[in-house]
Amino acid sequence: MGETVALSDMSPSDLNAFLQTQRTAYDDLVTRGLKLDLTRGKPSAQQLDLSNDLLRLPEGFTAADGTDTRNYGGLKGLTELREMFAELLWVEPEQVVAGGNSSLTMMKDCLVNLLLHGGVDSERPWSQEDKVTFICPVPGYDRHFGLLASLGIDMVTVPMNDDGPDVAAVEALVKDDPSVKGMWIVPTYSNPAGAVCSLEVASALAGMPTAAPDFKIFWDNAYALHHLTEDEAKSVDIVTLASGAGHPHRPIMFASTSKITFAGAGVGFLAASTDTIAWYVKHLGAGSIGPDKVNHLRHAQFFKDADGVREHMRRHRDIIAPKFAEVQRVLRESLGEHDVATWNDPTGGYFVNLDVVEGTAARVVELAKGAGIALTPAGSSFPYGKDPTDTNIRLAPTMPPVDEVTAAMDAVATCVLLAAAEKLSAAS
Amino acid sequence: MGETVALSDMSPSDLNAFLQTQRTAYDDLVTRGLKLDLTRGKPSAQQLDLSNDLLRLPEGFTAADGTDTRNYGGLKGLTELREMFAELLWVEPEQVVAGGNSSLTMMKDCLVNLLLHGGVDSERPWSQEDKVTFICPVPGYDRHFGLLASLGIDMVTVPMNDDGPDVAAVEALVKDDPSVKGMWIVPTYSNPAGAVCSLEVASALAGMPTAAPDFKIFWDNAYALHHLTEDEAKSVDIVTLASGAGHPHRPIMFASTSKITFAGAGVGFLAASTDTIAWYVKHLGAGSIGPDKVNHLRHAQFFKDADGVREHMRRHRDIIAPKFAEVQRVLRESLGEHDVATWNDPTGGYFVNLDVVEGTAARVVELAKGAGIALTPAGSSFPYGKDPTDTNIRLAPTMPPVDEVTAAMDAVATCVLLAAAEKLSAAS
Repeated sequence: MGETVALSDMSPSDLNAFLQTQRTAYDDLVTRGLKLDLTRGKPSAQQLDLSNDLLRLPEGFTAADGTDTRNYGGLKGLTELREMFAELLWVEPEQVVAGGNSSLTMMKDCLVNLLLHGGVDSERPWSQEDKVTFICPVPGYDRHFGLLASLGIDMVTVPMNDDGPDVAAVEALVKDDPSVKGMWIVPTYSNPAGAVCSLEVASALAGMPTAAPDFKIFWDNAYALHHLTEDEAKSVDIVTLASGAGHPHRPIMFASTSKITFAGAGVGFLAASTDTIAWYVKHLGAGSIGPDKVNHLRHAQFFKDADGVREHMRRHRDIIAPKFAEVQRVLRESLGEHDVATWNDPTGGYFVNLDVVEGTAARVVELAKGAGIALTPAGSSFPYGKDPTDTNIRLAPTMPPVDEVTAAMDAVATCVLLAAAEKLSAAS
Repeated sequence: MGETVALSDMSPSDLNAFLQTQRTAYDDLVTRGLKLDLTRGKPSAQQLDLSNDLLRLPEGFTAADGTDTRNYGGLKGLTELREMFAELLWVEPEQVVAGGNSSLTMMKDCLVNLLLHGGVDSERPWSQEDKVTFICPVPGYDRHFGLLASLGIDMVTVPMNDDGPDVAAVEALVKDDPSVKGMWIVPTYSNPAGAVCSLEVASALAGMPTAAPDFKIFWDNAYALHHLTEDEAKSVDIVTLASGAGHPHRPIMFASTSKITFAGAGVGFLAASTDTIAWYVKHLGAGSIGPDKVNHLRHAQFFKDADGVREHMRRHRDIIAPKFAEVQRVLRESLGEHDVATWNDPTGGYFVNLDVVEGTAARVVELAKGAGIALTPAGSSFPYGKDPTDTNIRLAPTMPPVDEVTAAMDAVATCVLLAAAEKLSAAS
């Protein structure tokens, strides 16, 4: 069949025929009146059900150390929960703060503290600098970029490779320019590329000379435990690595149970050098009466121990791995032979990264919307929402049931093919 | 008995005898080895027990509008809880945000937003002003002052009268100086003076001309529902009042269930003009995945409706009113005739405000500490911890059982008398 060759190899008439076929397919799609959503990395109801025992917890209200969790206090969070997640994050309990329901809020708090007060190794508050710039590996997490934009922090991009951020590009940016104050990394199953930061890359970032004495690595280990296969990636212990490299205050690690228990009612964590923890807690204390320790106790009792968390994550895997497999199947079967897209096959995390024909990502999203399929806006994985080549689309298959993933991905494939055919026809 | 006359009227020899008597009483006190605490306004375990049904809630996880409370989203908070507290705070539901477990955090967020972004009526971010000053009625809440200090905001004081802040003093500060950007008020049963802001005072503050176009009233209605008598003070509806006076964006109201349900695991609220709400939610969204809606649903189910909250507060009153009565009894019987102290008899809230002989408050707290009684540091109710006359002591009787309140207050009375006798002896 003519349709199984690469579009770029087609004759003009074959391409035109292909375009008409895809238009018909798309029109059929629109008449189906679908209403499907692949936008955000939300857990499905079935995943949330795994944690419904939380709704009946805690038993009692007293922590292991006798703390009445109902009352005020305890800025660092409940000891038994900090110990549990210290083990999971490969740090010491005194290097961990357990907070509220959002690690994103802890990231914002850190940035606000750096702007208003400076860090433990800063010469002055960042707001007193002429300019503050963060390095953003791309594709990356839209909310990281949005947070920086909201705070007036400039962004420069580096490529996100399969083993983490492009070290040479990072080194070139940090070595002479003291306004480059920090960088984001999602080290494990990155959002959206699924990359796992290697020990070599992490070591280079932890040890590299930086013109800014207070350069920060915001190490957002959001998917540290979110494996899709039995080959479970182990995150690098960046805190210890940076300490050994003589830059103990460089990394601040973030994690949460948002995609482990309840997305909106979990617990966020921050880990860093003990000096950084003291700094964070001092500023936290000016505007907090302590975190929700009842929810900490609820989580500690639910998991029982670190292995309880790991075991729980395998139950998530059993639910979502088939959805990721279905994304792969549809992409492979529908797009494989047309040479109009590349995509990754992540071994963990929440996303599939789809790169379509240059200049067609926004069109694919627009077409999908017309067919009732909500996709994350094109460009979302880039600072200011601007994908320079308009190729990148982030797919989030966890929320819908498998049959909806199939329907949505069939539709996406049609949109990708139609947009590619439109583009190539216009160019030919 | 010579001990029942005012100390200032005593002859030197009577005063010396009185001093020796108090020294002996104090030495006896020290030998008793007490360990009691009247420092912070924490609810007691018995009060917290009133809300233990929360530990078994919510039933299910679906809100009235179908929201799965377990998942992400809903920055403004759960609708049914916002409706309930809108009624209690005399505003419209769309003027209310239900947040995390700490209204103090919402206050900090507002201040940080004003500094970094400016308000809806600001010409520029406050951090770009040469100076930002807040008016602090004194005595007031130490954490309000600490928060401002942590953010580098200057403070000037005005007297807190029985009907609220001294309006003439406030007006004089705001009318010509655009750097005076805001003020604190605890309008109902103020911390620590127990004052209730009258409609007249609130109207004057809502309507007064201010040099700053974006002057803010931080209306911390922390004790709106915390009545100690059946004569329940009704807070002024400052949001409507300010809107009617042509300054709709001037007030931001705060409240929480911290002293209603669980102090560390309650829900904070913010109420303001709809423009201010939109402003708050926009900046909130940059660093939040939404509040803990499961806890919102838990609270909505627990209270059932606004009357459920009011009824619940009467159960608190039954527990704590006897403690406040005991404070009054001991102060009256031990200090009444010596003319060495004045104090208020609050009809709500969490504190008793004790004013001792000028220049002796710090000494009283020091003596109490020596006898095992923890009191809030002298000066805490003033900016920077500096009480200009060293007279003010904040007593917080809710946390200990009644018999401990009695023992602690007997000890405090001894310390007040000893410090007064020391002072007057030294002066005579």
